[in-house]
Amino acid sequence: MKHSKVKDLLNSTKTNYEVTVKGWVRTFRNNQFIALNDGSTIHNLQCVVDFENTPEETLKRINTGTAVALTGNLVESQGAGQKYEIQVTQLEILGDCDAEKFPMQPKKHSLEFLRENAHLRVRTNAFGAIMRVRSVLAHAVHTYFQERGFVYVNTPIITGADAEGAGEMFQVTSMPLDSLPKTEDGQINYKEDFFGKHTNLTVSGQLEAETYAMALGQVYTFGPTFRAENSNTSRHLAEFWMIEPEVAFNDLTDNMDLAEDFIKFVIQYAVERCADDLKFLEGRLLDEEKQKPQAERSEMTLLEKLNFVLNNDFKRVSYTEAIAILRESTPNKKKKFQYLIEEWGADLQSEHERYLVEKHFKCPVILFDYPAKIKAFYMRLNDNTEPGKETVRAMDILFPGIGEIVGGSQREERYDVLIEKMKAIGIDEEELWWYLDTRRFGSAVHSGFGLGFERLVLFVTGMTNIRDVIPFPRTPQNAEF
Amino acid sequence: MKHSKVKDLLNSTKTNYEVTVKGWVRTFRNNQFIALNDGSTIHNLQCVVDFENTPEETLKRINTGTAVALTGNLVESQGAGQKYEIQVTQLEILGDCDAEKFPMQPKKHSLEFLRENAHLRVRTNAFGAIMRVRSVLAHAVHTYFQERGFVYVNTPIITGADAEGAGEMFQVTSMPLDSLPKTEDGQINYKEDFFGKHTNLTVSGQLEAETYAMALGQVYTFGPTFRAENSNTSRHLAEFWMIEPEVAFNDLTDNMDLAEDFIKFVIQYAVERCADDLKFLEGRLLDEEKQKPQAERSEMTLLEKLNFVLNNDFKRVSYTEAIAILRESTPNKKKKFQYLIEEWGADLQSEHERYLVEKHFKCPVILFDYPAKIKAFYMRLNDNTEPGKETVRAMDILFPGIGEIVGGSQREERYDVLIEKMKAIGIDEEELWWYLDTRRFGSAVHSGFGLGFERLVLFVTGMTNIRDVIPFPRTPQNAEF
Repeated sequence: MKHSKVKDLLNSTKTNYEVTVKGWVRTFRNNQFIALNDGSTIHNLQCVVDFENTPEETLKRINTGTAVALTGNLVESQGAGQKYEIQVTQLEILGDCDAEKFPMQPKKHSLEFLRENAHLRVRTNAFGAIMRVRSVLAHAVHTYFQERGFVYVNTPIITGADAEGAGEMFQVTSMPLDSLPKTEDGQINYKEDFFGKHTNLTVSGQLEAETYAMALGQVYTFGPTFRAENSNTSRHLAEFWMIEPEVAFNDLTDNMDLAEDFIKFVIQYAVERCADDLKFLEGRLLDEEKQKPQAERSEMTLLEKLNFVLNNDFKRVSYTEAIAILRESTPNKKKKFQYLIEEWGADLQSEHERYLVEKHFKCPVILFDYPAKIKAFYMRLNDNTEPGKETVRAMDILFPGIGEIVGGSQREERYDVLIEKMKAIGIDEEELWWYLDTRRFGSAVHSGFGLGFERLVLFVTGMTNIRDVIPFPRTPQNAEF
Repeated sequence: MKHSKVKDLLNSTKTNYEVTVKGWVRTFRNNQFIALNDGSTIHNLQCVVDFENTPEETLKRINTGTAVALTGNLVESQGAGQKYEIQVTQLEILGDCDAEKFPMQPKKHSLEFLRENAHLRVRTNAFGAIMRVRSVLAHAVHTYFQERGFVYVNTPIITGADAEGAGEMFQVTSMPLDSLPKTEDGQINYKEDFFGKHTNLTVSGQLEAETYAMALGQVYTFGPTFRAENSNTSRHLAEFWMIEPEVAFNDLTDNMDLAEDFIKFVIQYAVERCADDLKFLEGRLLDEEKQKPQAERSEMTLLEKLNFVLNNDFKRVSYTEAIAILRESTPNKKKKFQYLIEEWGADLQSEHERYLVEKHFKCPVILFDYPAKIKAFYMRLNDNTEPGKETVRAMDILFPGIGEIVGGSQREERYDVLIEKMKAIGIDEEELWWYLDTRRFGSAVHSGFGLGFERLVLFVTGMTNIRDVIPFPRTPQNAEF
């Protein structure tokens, strides 16, 4: 008999028919009530075992974690807390689970302990919910772009270009490290490496995506990117997934419009499709916040926060305005910021971003028109700025509790200006010949942004550590599993 | 004025209204007719320039590749070959394109030349079509699984586990190769590396996906995988995208059913949504085949081939049956095979697979129940086999012209049997402790498969070299862009 999913049975429109379910025991009460979960939903299905007619040795094998196949009648439940239950007529133990040894006991585990058991933590309610929400958000990303005619582009993971300047890179090699081939003058001979050159893991697919946008018009990437930075924080991963749309003929305003519309769409998509999981995560967050002093608790519940983002315009603020606000702010005047804001041109730190978003504006903020010298070479230089106060058409989107979730810009489409900037900071134009070709042949205004997918998942699930929203996090000193 | 997409204008239901389009000139005929493409469709939009009232110096700048913004009336075309055209009233050159230097001339280029210009080849009709089809196929993959309740899982790209045995791996390191840290006894000190251990790029997410299937029931991966194999063939890439579903409680037959249904769904999805691009690619293939001797040409056109797959059951054949067929085959008897099939247990080579699919069955074939000794350790050992003739519940799907497109199996769910097999081939059980946990705690029958995404794109687009269906191919000695 084909088995049914718990989710479908809980949404059944009829009762009193025979069904089979397969899944894992979450709890077993009174030698009679199995709470069965099969991963299709956060909810368990109550299955009532006829314990009087079940051998004692079978009953003993029903533990938290045991895999079972159960057949019986689906009926309306007499007990509180569930609509339906199964009156089990056939019970098969598929796989035992030693209650003494199984790490996932039916109790609260610390997130740290669960990280050490990343292969098992997804068997808990919280991580099942997080990973289902993550999956739905990923589909929302594809759906948004595909429905609007964007082409999904898989930019390379292994790259020979290391001029992107977005941070420290991991090296990729197939050479034996204990007997590296050398050139005559004793240097490492990269010609002997797999690709015949020095290669790294990508930090961004943007430059390659730009070449595609200049042919297909609207493209997006969604793939893994890497940073070999020794940042042991709750917001950084060495391996994370990034979404990078790139659109020909879009200027910075179009780019901000796209980013805001996109973010609202994917959050809305998850809110509509993950109601049960988000409700559970909202409760989890409330419980967690109860541990905190009143002043540190959120003013809004998780769903209130999500709806707040959906229902409000993101506040668009120029860097220059932001500096003025920060300079006059109480923490700056009282010297509470670690980095005091003294003059125009200062790079904004996380403490400043949080102040703007969480204290001053109290909503998502789009900062734009940053000083050229603190931003990347490929960003479009604004026309008509004062000497020494050059700005670029960059924008960052800052979210409460998350900080930067999007970084983007209109790109410098003028060959001459781009070449000048590359020379000024010492980027080899030979190496980026193909990138420069986009400005040589039919160049045009274009814009794009990068959104860190895990930061989006963090925001939507209300989790606080980025290691808890990716299945197997990669961080300094940790590549287990 | 907001600009329109060429695709939308060509599907317009009204005429005689003012529109703006932005895109790139494909050709410019008679100083008058611009064929404009913006990547939204394979079709160009004819834009008629009022050459008598356009300055000569502007007309001279309209070359193949020039980026332009055109405004004018959308009208029914008088000329042959297009339904609509724009009578241009405003013409703006956005970016020039030097006709002498632009590599993408309006003529036929060799695929080899286009590979060397992978950043520009997407501006050709063929590569625009291929990349749109690739994108739609990727969305088909997500849509299939998401609609059926599968959870998308991002398994790690950088992995500390190198026991998977699926082939040569790339090493990932952040240590400086010219001054590697050493231990006291002169060995490379991996404790000093970023992750505190030796790490590689993943060859498969299967083992991690299994841990998720044993909690969420149905999961799938879709991400990049890597092989550091020096295979310079038209079917191999060092970096390619793989789809790996994994389903709890599925046996091998369920697994074959899933794979066949999935493949048919994604092909159908592309056939429905990419009609214009596939029609173009069908024509391209016909042209290419005209160069070949009659005997080597396909009997079917591209769309006929796709429809053939959609409308026919895949032939399911056991390895043992396949060996009997091959042993009795003409090329085997006439010693035309490079590797003659003499006895049961022989590994099948590409020539044998092609014979079965292209000559004998003339349809997609699912081979199953392979000898244990030629397959991976994690595959389910069949019960009741003769000693020396042990088989595993493996299956490979073979496609005409492509060869193996899917490899999968029911997994060995029995802890004791799995451990024995790992010991026999020397896999360290300490290293895979987390994988073994799935068999320690609530184990159950489960199955999955891997589908090489580029091989699917090859089949659907009718291309013959895998380097032509991924934007920036990575192969031995090639990591340009």
